[in-house]
Amino acid sequence: MNSSAAQLDRSFLALSHPVRRTILERLAHGPATVGEATRGVAVSKPAVTKHLRVLEDAGVIVRHVEGRIHRLALRVDGLVDAESWLDEYRSLWEAKFDAVERHLAKGGKDGDT
Amino acid sequence: MNSSAAQLDRSFLALSHPVRRTILERLAHGPATVGEATRGVAVSKPAVTKHLRVLEDAGVIVRHVEGRIHRLALRVDGLVDAESWLDEYRSLWEAKFDAVERHLAKGGKDGDT
Repeated sequence: MNSSAAQLDRSFLALSHPVRRTILERLAHGPATVGEATRGVAVSKPAVTKHLRVLEDAGVIVRHVEGRIHRLALRVDGLVDAESWLDEYRSLWEAKFDAVERHLAKGGKDGDT
Repeated sequence: MNSSAAQLDRSFLALSHPVRRTILERLAHGPATVGEATRGVAVSKPAVTKHLRVLEDAGVIVRHVEGRIHRLALRVDGLVDAESWLDEYRSLWEAKFDAVERHLAKGGKDGDT
């Protein structure tokens, strides 16, 4: 399992920049070279290198080097921990919300403040 | 709608620290004072203040000030954009994965490389 707090930090950090989300959206359609994954993205080469490293460190993508071609692909379980955290959070929150609604539906009179 | 790129950046950044996730998990059970929401969390008061500001800036929590009591609560639509992005990403990725599986099931012989 990859779901340590530090891993979650890296996963959410990886998602917190539009260039990195663009790269992930492109790779969701299939593996791509660095050039393909970052085409039209208005950032410098060093910046691209930095963003790719953040994604690799988070375990969201892998890089296969074939000679001079660097091919990027998503890792199957790359964002599973982030999705799980958000799902669990949403469940907690919805359960609470449902309880409040039930309380209000009863007129909020049962002393359950 | 809150789903601009900058908003998504802030949402995912808000989730990228264990102290902030702890605060959100506690608030998912209902509103709480700053003291309740951060009880036992091993960080300084200035650090707590900073983390709360990140959460407020991201629109994930709101703060109600009643005299000296600062009460925190989740915003209903606080993480909707982040959840939507991840859902969409997962759909893209699963569609691709299904296509690859169908291809492999056919023996990968239809020339669709």
